[in-house]
Amino acid sequence: MNVLIIHAHPEPQSFTAALREQALRTLQAQGHSVQVSDLYAMNWNPVASAGDFATRDNPDYLVYALEQRLGVKNGSLADDIRQELDKLLWADLLILNFPLYWFSVPAILKGWIDRVLVSGICYGGKRFYDQGGLVGKKALVTVTLGGREHMFGEGAIHGPLEDMLRPLLRGTLAYVGLDVLPPYVAWHVPYITAEAREQFLVGYHRRLEQLDQDSPLVFPRLEQFDEALYPIG
Amino acid sequence: MNVLIIHAHPEPQSFTAALREQALRTLQAQGHSVQVSDLYAMNWNPVASAGDFATRDNPDYLVYALEQRLGVKNGSLADDIRQELDKLLWADLLILNFPLYWFSVPAILKGWIDRVLVSGICYGGKRFYDQGGLVGKKALVTVTLGGREHMFGEGAIHGPLEDMLRPLLRGTLAYVGLDVLPPYVAWHVPYITAEAREQFLVGYHRRLEQLDQDSPLVFPRLEQFDEALYPIG
Repeated sequence: MNVLIIHAHPEPQSFTAALREQALRTLQAQGHSVQVSDLYAMNWNPVASAGDFATRDNPDYLVYALEQRLGVKNGSLADDIRQELDKLLWADLLILNFPLYWFSVPAILKGWIDRVLVSGICYGGKRFYDQGGLVGKKALVTVTLGGREHMFGEGAIHGPLEDMLRPLLRGTLAYVGLDVLPPYVAWHVPYITAEAREQFLVGYHRRLEQLDQDSPLVFPRLEQFDEALYPIG
Repeated sequence: MNVLIIHAHPEPQSFTAALREQALRTLQAQGHSVQVSDLYAMNWNPVASAGDFATRDNPDYLVYALEQRLGVKNGSLADDIRQELDKLLWADLLILNFPLYWFSVPAILKGWIDRVLVSGICYGGKRFYDQGGLVGKKALVTVTLGGREHMFGEGAIHGPLEDMLRPLLRGTLAYVGLDVLPPYVAWHVPYITAEAREQFLVGYHRRLEQLDQDSPLVFPRLEQFDEALYPIG
């Protein structure tokens, strides 16, 4: 299996980085090939802009998704986008490894999503959800956060974590056709002991060793909707 | 009323920019004071990093929220953050004006949230939701998107838009104590006629004129939870 880990944490010694290293070790020991994009170390540019295209279909008015489609065809996508896109297309499993910022991904990772998941390859027209451009690949979200586990779930103060992660799990990863595995969550990280952190690393190791037994989350399938995308029945 | 509009669109002539101008005109005509932060025009840096602090409590290991708290106290926050924070504290109403990217905010706007909503002022400890640091202010999300209205809602292919916006509406804006008004949504924007766009501008004008009649969305209150944030009863 080819695995791409997208890592987004501003502190190189962070526990989130330890999870990245754990994934690298565990997956390589299983014989998988692993590439890591360390967005902070790469000084990744997260801002989608006109500068992302060497040539433009319409130089006077930017419609970003349209220029992506053209850029895919004529090779005018910026080099940094093309390099990440090549890694993504190479990968069978995409791991997003990050600390939760405002119940979501850090901006530098949002900008990887905004710029790399290009229209024309990853989605476009009726190619989304189970018809998405990346069908056949898997995705795993590995997230560290400050909150405690009991603050999430039905009736809990923040509600279910998967509801907070909905635009990422459903609106992004499932949208482009990926099989989205249940997230791996390390709770309360800034406040716990070294032993508790070690337990999360051990749990992550075990989880990664048995990843092929995970059932993906369930999302809509296009066959449940008509041509205009109204629900059928 | 003091109003801060955070605008995030890469195309200066976009319909999203027309909505920004509509808000500016409408609110000023009502006698309100309005400031606009045009994140693309400002070349806003969205990446939270160690560089955001002139001095650090711990120069060897970055815990971003801890350094924010110190930075607030000792004035070591980066100038660009401090300037936006001052505008935010000045404002009675915050408007986020953006095109939906991956069912969420563009990365440049996520980075405004990550960097400007500093711990120690906007939230921290038990100061969140109805006890958040920005209690008494309002927030309005004004969003343009490509999808049609029937693609959102219960049973629709993407589910309710407010569920997709949950990390923003609840996890961010309500979290810091803002009264979050129902979003203003312009649907299917890239594909509609000039007349249809005009209707959205007219609708926005009317909405803004009657903003004081809007009921905010309902979110958890801390009194519903005990000291450890378990639900009461």
